[in-house]
Amino acid sequence: MPRAYVHRLAMTAPDDTGLIEREIRAGGIQAAAIVAILGKTEGNGCVNDFTRGYATQSLRLMLARHLPASAVEEICLVMSGGTEGALSPHWIVVEARSDDLADDGTESGASTEPALAVGHAITRPLLPEEIGRIPQVALVAEAVGVAMRRAAIDDPADVHLVQIKCPLLTADRIAEAAGRGAGVATGDTLKSMGLSRGAAALGIAVTLGELSMAAIAEDAIGRDAGLASGRASTSAGVELMSNEIVVLGQSSAWTGPLRIGHAVMRDAIDVGPVAAMMRELGLPAPLSGSLEASARLVALLAKAEAGSSGSLRGHRHTMLDDSDLSATRHARAFVGGALAGLTGETALFISGGAEHQGPDGGGPCAIIVERTA
Amino acid sequence: MPRAYVHRLAMTAPDDTGLIEREIRAGGIQAAAIVAILGKTEGNGCVNDFTRGYATQSLRLMLARHLPASAVEEICLVMSGGTEGALSPHWIVVEARSDDLADDGTESGASTEPALAVGHAITRPLLPEEIGRIPQVALVAEAVGVAMRRAAIDDPADVHLVQIKCPLLTADRIAEAAGRGAGVATGDTLKSMGLSRGAAALGIAVTLGELSMAAIAEDAIGRDAGLASGRASTSAGVELMSNEIVVLGQSSAWTGPLRIGHAVMRDAIDVGPVAAMMRELGLPAPLSGSLEASARLVALLAKAEAGSSGSLRGHRHTMLDDSDLSATRHARAFVGGALAGLTGETALFISGGAEHQGPDGGGPCAIIVERTA
Amino acid sequence: MPRAYVHRLAMTAPDDTGLIEREIRAGGIQAAAIVAILGKTEGNGCVNDFTRGYATQSLRLMLARHLPASAVEEICLVMSGGTEGALSPHWIVVEARSDDLADDGTESGASTEPALAVGHAITRPLLPEEIGRIPQVALVAEAVGVAMRRAAIDDPADVHLVQIKCPLLTADRIAEAAGRGAGVATGDTLKSMGLSRGAAALGIAVTLGELSMAAIAEDAIGRDAGLASGRASTSAGVELMSNEIVVLGQSSAWTGPLRIGHAVMRDAIDVGPVAAMMRELGLPAPLSGSLEASARLVALLAKAEAGSSGSLRGHRHTMLDDSDLSATRHARAFVGGALAGLTGETALFISGGAEHQGPDGGGPCAIIVERTA
Amino acid sequence: MPRAYVHRLAMTAPDDTGLIEREIRAGGIQAAAIVAILGKTEGNGCVNDFTRGYATQSLRLMLARHLPASAVEEICLVMSGGTEGALSPHWIVVEARSDDLADDGTESGASTEPALAVGHAITRPLLPEEIGRIPQVALVAEAVGVAMRRAAIDDPADVHLVQIKCPLLTADRIAEAAGRGAGVATGDTLKSMGLSRGAAALGIAVTLGELSMAAIAEDAIGRDAGLASGRASTSAGVELMSNEIVVLGQSSAWTGPLRIGHAVMRDAIDVGPVAAMMRELGLPAPLSGSLEASARLVALLAKAEAGSSGSLRGHRHTMLDDSDLSATRHARAFVGGALAGLTGETALFISGGAEHQGPDGGGPCAIIVERTA
Repeated sequence: MPRAYVHRLAMTAPDDTGLIEREIRAGGIQAAAIVAILGKTEGNGCVNDFTRGYATQSLRLMLARHLPASAVEEICLVMSGGTEGALSPHWIVVEARSDDLADDGTESGASTEPALAVGHAITRPLLPEEIGRIPQVALVAEAVGVAMRRAAIDDPADVHLVQIKCPLLTADRIAEAAGRGAGVATGDTLKSMGLSRGAAALGIAVTLGELSMAAIAEDAIGRDAGLASGRASTSAGVELMSNEIVVLGQSSAWTGPLRIGHAVMRDAIDVGPVAAMMRELGLPAPLSGSLEASARLVALLAKAEAGSSGSLRGHRHTMLDDSDLSATRHARAFVGGALAGLTGETALFISGGAEHQGPDGGGPCAIIVERTA
Repeated sequence: MPRAYVHRLAMTAPDDTGLIEREIRAGGIQAAAIVAILGKTEGNGCVNDFTRGYATQSLRLMLARHLPASAVEEICLVMSGGTEGALSPHWIVVEARSDDLADDGTESGASTEPALAVGHAITRPLLPEEIGRIPQVALVAEAVGVAMRRAAIDDPADVHLVQIKCPLLTADRIAEAAGRGAGVATGDTLKSMGLSRGAAALGIAVTLGELSMAAIAEDAIGRDAGLASGRASTSAGVELMSNEIVVLGQSSAWTGPLRIGHAVMRDAIDVGPVAAMMRELGLPAPLSGSLEASARLVALLAKAEAGSSGSLRGHRHTMLDDSDLSATRHARAFVGGALAGLTGETALFISGGAEHQGPDGGGPCAIIVERTA
Repeated sequence: MPRAYVHRLAMTAPDDTGLIEREIRAGGIQAAAIVAILGKTEGNGCVNDFTRGYATQSLRLMLARHLPASAVEEICLVMSGGTEGALSPHWIVVEARSDDLADDGTESGASTEPALAVGHAITRPLLPEEIGRIPQVALVAEAVGVAMRRAAIDDPADVHLVQIKCPLLTADRIAEAAGRGAGVATGDTLKSMGLSRGAAALGIAVTLGELSMAAIAEDAIGRDAGLASGRASTSAGVELMSNEIVVLGQSSAWTGPLRIGHAVMRDAIDVGPVAAMMRELGLPAPLSGSLEASARLVALLAKAEAGSSGSLRGHRHTMLDDSDLSATRHARAFVGGALAGLTGETALFISGGAEHQGPDGGGPCAIIVERTA
Repeated sequence: MPRAYVHRLAMTAPDDTGLIEREIRAGGIQAAAIVAILGKTEGNGCVNDFTRGYATQSLRLMLARHLPASAVEEICLVMSGGTEGALSPHWIVVEARSDDLADDGTESGASTEPALAVGHAITRPLLPEEIGRIPQVALVAEAVGVAMRRAAIDDPADVHLVQIKCPLLTADRIAEAAGRGAGVATGDTLKSMGLSRGAAALGIAVTLGELSMAAIAEDAIGRDAGLASGRASTSAGVELMSNEIVVLGQSSAWTGPLRIGHAVMRDAIDVGPVAAMMRELGLPAPLSGSLEASARLVALLAKAEAGSSGSLRGHRHTMLDDSDLSATRHARAFVGGALAGLTGETALFISGGAEHQGPDGGGPCAIIVERTA
């Protein structure tokens, strides 16, 4: 039976892949089993955030020392910029090992309950004019299905998070499309990130059965906050034109001690559902007191955004009116603080821009834990 | 018996004093009883944050419609810039009414336990060369004692927060001192803000018995993070040369339903002590579930800063290396998120720059609550 | 005959009106003759720039010491935020004195050529849903005509600059409109500044005969860069909902030594036409060498913007892709540098966002000079 | 005789080395002859600017396809972040070809006048505690001498620019030094960039005979603006710990049509000396009118900084008080605008932070031109 491994490792800069390589050399990570590497890098998380591309290039250089080029190309590299507040830059390396031996050499196939299951897929590169529009929704929907099948997850209810890295528009890409007579969804490059994240999230919602394709009008993308997936986490970056998809869920076809759950935060400080989910997964909440329990919190992935109403529980916020600091940076810092206060942990994968990902101003939060023996 | 009233009111912009004036007109606030107005304004909280001066000018204009000029001058106006994340701009109006009638017309003197007590004092204007040095420490220490006596607080243990507005150096002030042959603590005007905040905090620590005057060497000011007060909140401004001091504590000489407590956060996400303090004050923690309990959280005041080590619980943070976004803005957003996650409330008075105010990377947090009947 | 006076005075902060008041007290400025005060303040020039409102409030407080309240209300206060690079915060006080005595006591009525003429007008407050749309264009067009008549300028060709301060949308204003069921031109508050500036500029173009009202479709506002005025300078601010209009031109009904000219820069570094215009007005260009000539450069007002093509003379620029620093801040700094290099002067009124003001990426530039005897 | 070639090529992103590689493939650039590649990248130019490291890594990857690894290591890669305003990201590739054939196949050795000469050197990696201190000055001084000898320049007067890429402190590096009990020059990482740039510039001044080593006290570094080199251009980056040095001058031992000159700007808008130098080199100034002359402006390298006095020609600027936007970004945009207005060109290598490089608030400017036949 396949078994998933998840390693959370620190980076000292976007090009610092040292701890991953050390684990590969020490045998703690099997390079050939890596399905995806997520990176929370320290850029601004917006259009001109080159830390994502730098991290991706650095990962590829490192992986090429351990894998053939074709195998490197197969790995999903999902970089998300922005470690505002005390959020800590880190990698999350996801392995899917096909051998059935646990770390201790015992057979791990005797699992009596569903375990963490992982699958991935990549769409073809989008044309600039497809970004943030129905063709992106449809391509993503199809690829999520492919990734689910690879994860051996039949029931969409067993999917707890779909992480996608999707493209954005730049002045150059807009000009290239214009040169072919094609208009793009928006001339505002920062805004294109939101449309792309939103279209990718809607593609997830379609395949998870949360929405029907027919219910999604093109002009609702980025506008109708009522359309949403509770299990989507999408993040846009300048370094790719395709959509890279990682499905995380549970399947009884997988083994090992890892489990995953998710909750939907209704707003930026709605930590209650996350606490409840932690307790369901066997963790105390808040976590700050226990080192042993902290060690079992393997990874947390959540979305953050400034609600479009300009207020939170009736109090005005200033995120949308701040021309010095983008709303996504504000939101990551604040939601990061809320979840760090709950978990006692700052290496959290908080990703900004939650268009169609959970309710307006809120967002999905998934946690991977290690079950106690 | 005197009775303190604390009103937390929203502002829609730094010059929006409308809700305060409405309360004054409606009799909910007695202008003549106002001791201090704190304002959390939406600027960057750094050097070129003019929202503080704008708010102060706007408050004076409004107060002048209700009080003689001399009375306006007596009121401590303590503005703190920075509402990062979803923090909400607001005013905190503190009244000390001498009459002993409660809102419902009943006598409130029959208090059986200590209630919120307020006192204020102003030091003489400092000479430029005294700012950030021992003379400032000593003058503040003395004035904190005066404010305590005015608040009828005998035991330093009954003081829960001392909020101070202190002066800073400007080029003109440095030149004036130089003209008299006097050197100042620093030629860097921005740095002088930190030294002044630090010296004021140490003055508080002396009077509260946390440190002895003899233990404070002049060159430790702004340098030795081991010297600190757990109940100091100080902020520097260009508009004064004196130190304006507001002492908040409890005294059995005061009446009314308000209570205050404080906790010291050891780092930016150390919400445990705050939760414990909330429970001691009769509030549930976390608070997010209960509207009735939320209404009893009258005000929260806390300090935030990026720890100088560059890491938090062993994980690197990027606040000190971010040249786009100052560390104080990062820290306010993150600590704001942590405390908002705990309290379910975003109108929190989170103030940056915590020199000698709590441990390195942490800071004091005070909460004012309304006791249930 | 009326005579215009223009005073350029430094400010040390947005609330520093000291030099204006000193001139009023010394008789150098006649408070009752002030038509307009322009202020280049040191905020970010974007949505949350409160330096404009602070300056406006401070000017009103100061003026109220010298004029009746109704007269203060009549004065156009046009604040423009943003002194990027070495641009220097300053006031430009414009007087229209009706008496015909020159400073030296001689009659100044014997003017043989047209002199600087000034007129102003204010529209009614806009509704949020009118901002950036045809109603704003029409209201501005009408008010520009009123201001021209007040300036005794019959021929639109004699108008050299129309400076307008116009409103913008905030989250609150959008919500207020939504509460009445009214949709606004954009939900993006930063973008609303551009639409408002653009609509105001188109109103100018209509009255100056550069465009016909019929040629302006609502969806061309902010989009069709081919529609433009070569003499418009508009700037949006949160502190007003009306449009405040100052017309600057030449008229033989006015006297005095001041003259005005304008040029249209085709791009951000197109200083050639400005140099040519300076020489026509009797100034050397570049000016850096001559103190006497510099003294005759009374004021320079210009617009700056990042061209929408993303490149300048074939070279890519990064202003539109920078999520840390808004394009208007980039553009003001850069155009400010180009014009400061030409004029040897940094107290230049460079205003960002040149939608429909000159060609895409360029903008109008007006200079007021003092004619030599 | 050796001959220098200088190629200015656009980049579309920090990792876009496409045009360089195209030239290598087409034979326009001889990879083995490359001495140095300078890159003006689009980051913030401050501490957390990873565009420099990303560009460096991308260059090395590309060069490795054309050169052996040891040869790649020999090439100086000097990245300078910050393309504020309309400055355009670009590469400057410097070749020193040893063969004596000109592009047209004729012998080029018959040069009758000195031509552009190039030399380079790299110091050993600094320890964190050496950055911004005398050891850095001394190491740089020695290496500049090495680079001069390699350029066959005997007389320091024939050196027109020394471009250096030097290291900076980060929180991690400070901690590493502290772990060894070593204190660093400053705990402020942004400030460390200035100290490193300053120490490197002083090293240049020593070797060019502008200052004696004995005249430089350690505490004068970053403080005494009276100590300066008029031909230093230094830039700090997180991606290296050594100092990479490129000397540009003229030597009669070199041949070819390229010439170099330099001027010292006294302040940010002092374009007069640059115009004079352009005319000496045979270019008109201002250049904007002539395409033929523009083509002969091969490269411009200049330093920009915000003068420490806080004013320029008597007018206050706000660069030093802006907590949202670092002074170096302000200064690059403004000086870039001034020089672009003069040259009609935006692909200018304007580098921020001119500590000890020219007078306070000004800086050196070098221009490389192609002599007409």
